[in-house]
Amino acid sequence: MLSTMQDVPLLVSGILRHGQQVYGESEVLTVVNAEGDVTTASFATVAERSERLAAALRRLGIGEGDRVATFLWNNQTHLEAYLAIPAMGAVLHTLNVRLFPEQLTYIVNHAEDKVIIVDASLLPLLAPLLEGMPTVEHLVVNGTGETVEVAGALRYEELLAAEEPGFVWPELDERVAAAMCYTSGTTGNPKGVVYSHRSTYLHSMAVTAGGSLGIGEMDRVLSIVPMFHANAWGTPYAGFMTGADLLMPQQFLQAAPLAAVIRRWRPTVSAGVPTIWSDLLRYLRANETDLSSLRMITAGGAAVPRQLMEQFQDELGVRMVQGWGMTETSPLCALAVAPRQASVEEEMDWRSRTGRVVPGVEVRICGDDGTILPNDGVSVGEFEVRGPWITGSYYLDPAPDRFHDGWLRTGDIGTLDARGFMQISDRTKDVIKSGGEWISSVELEIEVMAHPDVVEAAVIAVPDERWSERPLVALVLEEGTETTVEDVMAFLVGRVSRWWLPERWAIIDEVPKTSVGKFDKKVLRARYADGELEVLRVDPSQGA
Amino acid sequence: MLSTMQDVPLLVSGILRHGQQVYGESEVLTVVNAEGDVTTASFATVAERSERLAAALRRLGIGEGDRVATFLWNNQTHLEAYLAIPAMGAVLHTLNVRLFPEQLTYIVNHAEDKVIIVDASLLPLLAPLLEGMPTVEHLVVNGTGETVEVAGALRYEELLAAEEPGFVWPELDERVAAAMCYTSGTTGNPKGVVYSHRSTYLHSMAVTAGGSLGIGEMDRVLSIVPMFHANAWGTPYAGFMTGADLLMPQQFLQAAPLAAVIRRWRPTVSAGVPTIWSDLLRYLRANETDLSSLRMITAGGAAVPRQLMEQFQDELGVRMVQGWGMTETSPLCALAVAPRQASVEEEMDWRSRTGRVVPGVEVRICGDDGTILPNDGVSVGEFEVRGPWITGSYYLDPAPDRFHDGWLRTGDIGTLDARGFMQISDRTKDVIKSGGEWISSVELEIEVMAHPDVVEAAVIAVPDERWSERPLVALVLEEGTETTVEDVMAFLVGRVSRWWLPERWAIIDEVPKTSVGKFDKKVLRARYADGELEVLRVDPSQGA
Repeated sequence: MLSTMQDVPLLVSGILRHGQQVYGESEVLTVVNAEGDVTTASFATVAERSERLAAALRRLGIGEGDRVATFLWNNQTHLEAYLAIPAMGAVLHTLNVRLFPEQLTYIVNHAEDKVIIVDASLLPLLAPLLEGMPTVEHLVVNGTGETVEVAGALRYEELLAAEEPGFVWPELDERVAAAMCYTSGTTGNPKGVVYSHRSTYLHSMAVTAGGSLGIGEMDRVLSIVPMFHANAWGTPYAGFMTGADLLMPQQFLQAAPLAAVIRRWRPTVSAGVPTIWSDLLRYLRANETDLSSLRMITAGGAAVPRQLMEQFQDELGVRMVQGWGMTETSPLCALAVAPRQASVEEEMDWRSRTGRVVPGVEVRICGDDGTILPNDGVSVGEFEVRGPWITGSYYLDPAPDRFHDGWLRTGDIGTLDARGFMQISDRTKDVIKSGGEWISSVELEIEVMAHPDVVEAAVIAVPDERWSERPLVALVLEEGTETTVEDVMAFLVGRVSRWWLPERWAIIDEVPKTSVGKFDKKVLRARYADGELEVLRVDPSQGA
Repeated sequence: MLSTMQDVPLLVSGILRHGQQVYGESEVLTVVNAEGDVTTASFATVAERSERLAAALRRLGIGEGDRVATFLWNNQTHLEAYLAIPAMGAVLHTLNVRLFPEQLTYIVNHAEDKVIIVDASLLPLLAPLLEGMPTVEHLVVNGTGETVEVAGALRYEELLAAEEPGFVWPELDERVAAAMCYTSGTTGNPKGVVYSHRSTYLHSMAVTAGGSLGIGEMDRVLSIVPMFHANAWGTPYAGFMTGADLLMPQQFLQAAPLAAVIRRWRPTVSAGVPTIWSDLLRYLRANETDLSSLRMITAGGAAVPRQLMEQFQDELGVRMVQGWGMTETSPLCALAVAPRQASVEEEMDWRSRTGRVVPGVEVRICGDDGTILPNDGVSVGEFEVRGPWITGSYYLDPAPDRFHDGWLRTGDIGTLDARGFMQISDRTKDVIKSGGEWISSVELEIEVMAHPDVVEAAVIAVPDERWSERPLVALVLEEGTETTVEDVMAFLVGRVSRWWLPERWAIIDEVPKTSVGKFDKKVLRARYADGELEVLRVDPSQGA
């Protein structure tokens, strides 16, 4: 029996129209310098400019399904691209400006991008690669002041000025592609995730839920997480849908300009990776700043140290909420909001878990043998996720080993409890198999990094004759500290199981990172294999 | 270009499973007497019982698409029916327990209900009609203590006890029917609206949005609005999806038991029609009650007098938010939340408008000639709405005159402004056409009812030789008051346009109401036509 409901598709043009017709006075603020000065445009203006952008792209030959890439910081132009490109039926392909050249070339060619919209300031990174990108027919430069010149490049503002507003958004099938983003896989080639209009719309609704970020008209959202990372966690679309101002930091992502932006423009919500927050904390300790506008900040993209959340809470009075997701999951899957049963004392215990699954997403854990394990908070297995904003394959790359009966295998392992709380203990490829038991490299890192003189630390598995594998800690100490490896080891005693205590340590200058800022353990493993790490042996029993 | 997203349908079983797996400890509290005592069940229990109910219905021969009706107050059984019946692929048909017998018989036969689940206390209303309902194969009685007996009636608890939990919910197409509800049309036969799984799921998400009701795990929702009225405004599904406790008042809807329930069980959110709130206000003035648990109450189903919102705010410290919707719209379309630009002084001006359109719904106004009018806050026309939770037809009754290019014609007229605020001034059929201009019967009623000695008032159009139509005010005065019609007229001066001031008044004991408690102006018009109203003539110029 069919319903009598209207068959109205969930489209990005619906998000655009709602922001335009209901929240025309809300604003997009783009930071233009390290002092935090901004340019401002109303949603009405952004919507009208999006109509012009669509008309301009149509004139350049962009049709439904064609890929239009962006190589942009978080700014007003990027938002216009977010809205116009999917709404016209084309596909927004956000390029990570921090990708290595070969990866960038690979994904532009794999996606067959026809147009790239690029910030003038980023042109030097892209220009040398254009020759190797034969599908790119047009380069559109946003802003001015580029230091290199590309023959035939078009100017964003000139294209818009030549068009009229009033583009008629097509009534698309909600399942067609709206946007795509490549994962920064640490093994093999990057893989493309293609979001649909439906998934984008539903994900935006999930981000606006009261139990999640609850973004609404009273908010001003500072999205530090780049718009080329998994939709900037859905904040641009959620904000446009609900009238929240969007505060766009562009490339001014260092602690000092961020603090200035927060002080001057008073965001209510912000989203960023833990390292950004950690840098900001250090800066704010020395430079008192009014943070009272912030009702919540979210952190994700890497495990969030409990200590960092406590410091933000206790020293700055700011509530930090940890979220979990992946490029493959749009990304919002879980948020570590304490359950109602939590006492004040327990609250931080809950908040320091990976996250609690949000409505619309299903999570389960799966053992090595493919059986589904109980949600008992104890059984350890690989997380698998399912839902309307979770990918079911990769673009032109089925990768069947990444899926299991229609569920996405996340590559993360850990436990799931009866309240839907996930606790990730490791990546499947990073876990240390020691004497038949598993040591979580991530948990060990968190405990090591809890030491006040440790800047960062990465743990990798190294071969061991007796135990098969044992952990090695690659450690970055504060400059000038007198703390030794032995001190850090002593600090670990009582914080982790006795048999986890690592015998192997190496002091390094910096943990190598991937293009999206995650620890690149692949590089560390290679350095170890090549004998480049100077390994210090410490007897764990000395620390006891 | 297709997306790579998983093709996961939006289903009621998804809402059920999320509540079960993530919020199993949240509770459903059912009020069992006028003192406000409750029985309690966890979501885990409700989910398990829903599995048993589905198994029992399957055993009774209910298959996909079959209609299962409920004739129940708001209680735990009704919630189990809300979850199990759609989740198993059957269609939940909520019957209004206040319907007139002929209407009830008509809609059960029109929907071809196969099973009716009925509260024992309501059986006397239903039993005499069963003979005229040939499609009904089984009657299932909830609770005990009925005063009539129906041969072959089954017991709800016995059916559940005979089954095992673990019913496997089918993977349905999200566009199939989940539930249906008939409108209480004041003209012609009732019309059936058939909600889909998709519309139900999306509507639930809309209800949980931070800018809307923001229902989440920290909430306990007292749904006074019946579950047989347009999904109880989506609160049962939204609550189960997000872990909010559900507080079910059954038939204990008078002010005294509601006050006891609020005091004892501390709901955070409540939803009801204005008359309920108005009764409660009167009661609370005489019986001080702790309302501090309430963060928000919503009112809808009829225009909410500004005075009522002010009284709740000023006297009780409770924020009342007006919403607008219809059975045809699931119902949430608009909520009167003040825009960010509102000053403290202006806030109530905004809140007393009909509502601001929520994301997912599109609203426009349309003139008599079918042209779309501007959203300028001035142009007056009929509201038309569009969206994935808005009906596009009626069950086996296309009613093409109620739709316009795929948009639902609401029958409400008013203005729409550039911020998406709707202001309904009247029903198309109630507006008074006086001398070529329109007088809003609703606005006139609101102003008359603002007089402290007026209990209620309904305004109808009556023929007038000179002006074509003029308003007649049917007035209910406080018992024992000395206020006269002339006093009320004098009160109106300055509150409405001079030419709106009515010459015709009638004092009545009560405004006749429809089965859902709305003013039944059809009856008033008939009484006037039959000469049953004693019309007092007042010269408006006397009041000036």
